[in-house]
Amino acid sequence: MEEHPRAWIISVGNELLIGRTINTNAAWLGSRLTLLGFEVERVVTVPDRVEDIAEEVGRALGRARVVITTGGLGPTYDDVTLQGVAMALGRGLKLHPGALEMVRRFYSKRGLGLTEDRVKMAMLPDGAEPLENPVGAAPGAVVEARGSLVASLPGVPSEMEAMFEKALRPLLEEIAPPGAVVECGIAVVGVPESSLAPYIKEASRVSPRVYVKSHPQGSEIGKPLVRVRVLARASTLEEARAEALKALEKVRRGVEELGGSISEEDSC
Amino acid sequence: MEEHPRAWIISVGNELLIGRTINTNAAWLGSRLTLLGFEVERVVTVPDRVEDIAEEVGRALGRARVVITTGGLGPTYDDVTLQGVAMALGRGLKLHPGALEMVRRFYSKRGLGLTEDRVKMAMLPDGAEPLENPVGAAPGAVVEARGSLVASLPGVPSEMEAMFEKALRPLLEEIAPPGAVVECGIAVVGVPESSLAPYIKEASRVSPRVYVKSHPQGSEIGKPLVRVRVLARASTLEEARAEALKALEKVRRGVEELGGSISEEDSC
Repeated sequence: MEEHPRAWIISVGNELLIGRTINTNAAWLGSRLTLLGFEVERVVTVPDRVEDIAEEVGRALGRARVVITTGGLGPTYDDVTLQGVAMALGRGLKLHPGALEMVRRFYSKRGLGLTEDRVKMAMLPDGAEPLENPVGAAPGAVVEARGSLVASLPGVPSEMEAMFEKALRPLLEEIAPPGAVVECGIAVVGVPESSLAPYIKEASRVSPRVYVKSHPQGSEIGKPLVRVRVLARASTLEEARAEALKALEKVRRGVEELGGSISEEDSC
Repeated sequence: MEEHPRAWIISVGNELLIGRTINTNAAWLGSRLTLLGFEVERVVTVPDRVEDIAEEVGRALGRARVVITTGGLGPTYDDVTLQGVAMALGRGLKLHPGALEMVRRFYSKRGLGLTEDRVKMAMLPDGAEPLENPVGAAPGAVVEARGSLVASLPGVPSEMEAMFEKALRPLLEEIAPPGAVVECGIAVVGVPESSLAPYIKEASRVSPRVYVKSHPQGSEIGKPLVRVRVLARASTLEEARAEALKALEKVRRGVEELGGSISEEDSC
């Protein structure tokens, strides 16, 4: 597959590591970033520890065009994501007047004042700008450094999604590569994945801009169900669709030759 | 929290990065590893590329006592996890007679023979031993190197879970630390997370063996719902329970003082 600007997602939170929470945020972001034309290269989940966050953000800097962190922006003692980002950037945290105004407004509308724990949410890495939180109290933050756009979003899914759509998407669209991405696929029944393997390989060679992947979901033998997904990138939507269909055609031929059938189609 | 042997989970698969599949395997494994007494330090999702897999397995070696990879063991062209593990170990892949016998048996029971793509599933890193797959065709692999136990499990959840329980758990129990881990919590209504923050901090100071975390799930203001979870480790189950309850007691007191109430309890 051609080189596309890379994106890293860094998910912060012990609850993810101990399996209390399933990381749906990473999948949601991965899908949006892919359709915007970025190549998601890593999702890294780290504990709520400054050094661990700094280590992974530091690895991503200069390597990924976009680095998105989720979680750890709230008012409690272990919300330390922006400390970790600041450490990776070699900068300090600074009270941002615009962010403080966002926090102040959020609480004053509800008849509450500022407390130490609430003011903490307006401490951003030096040089970062706040991202408005349309749903909750904690602003996000975005900063450009060493060729990477580093954006920090909340961990609560409704807040993360709203901030991504309203505040971050416009910034990403400016740096997203031109062109189009499509993803589609078929579900194949009656053929073991291992028998389909040579056809999938052939399909993947249709173009370097096409990525073909099989997902076995039934049993390998007995009642095999294999979903074959194709992701194609091209300069126009029509071209991307055409390449995806060309690749799927190779798989269809295999299904036919092997006596299987197609139970579902998901058009490009 | 006290130092416990660390575990890393390395999830292999483009479908996870592009958000087509939600990484439920990592949560499932994270929960089991935590209850076995390991501290899950990273979950890293990587593409189906040998170099990327090798990079992350290489980082984990010597740092994590246990490294578990999921996915990429199947018969298709992009199932390259064991190549990545071998590269990280500085070893080659080798046809393992025991693994080949597992694959041969799986297919012959179903009246099928071996093909090149099927034999590929028995190519393990030099020195690794196969892990039986009670559900599917591809064996797993386990190898001890540089102080780390590296285990590779399939990506299909039913296969991953069965292999973990039957083949890997006994090996992990041998190296797991003695002692017990409990996790429990309460759901608090009527108090914003930012007001509860000082009490949560106080609870987290009850013992270095206790970890307290709040998860806001309602809105910060209006109808706040905050789940507070406590994870406690100790040498016996009774001690772990006692420490968890002591920490929760601090939070309960805060809820009372702030005029909130507890809507759910999940006993230790």
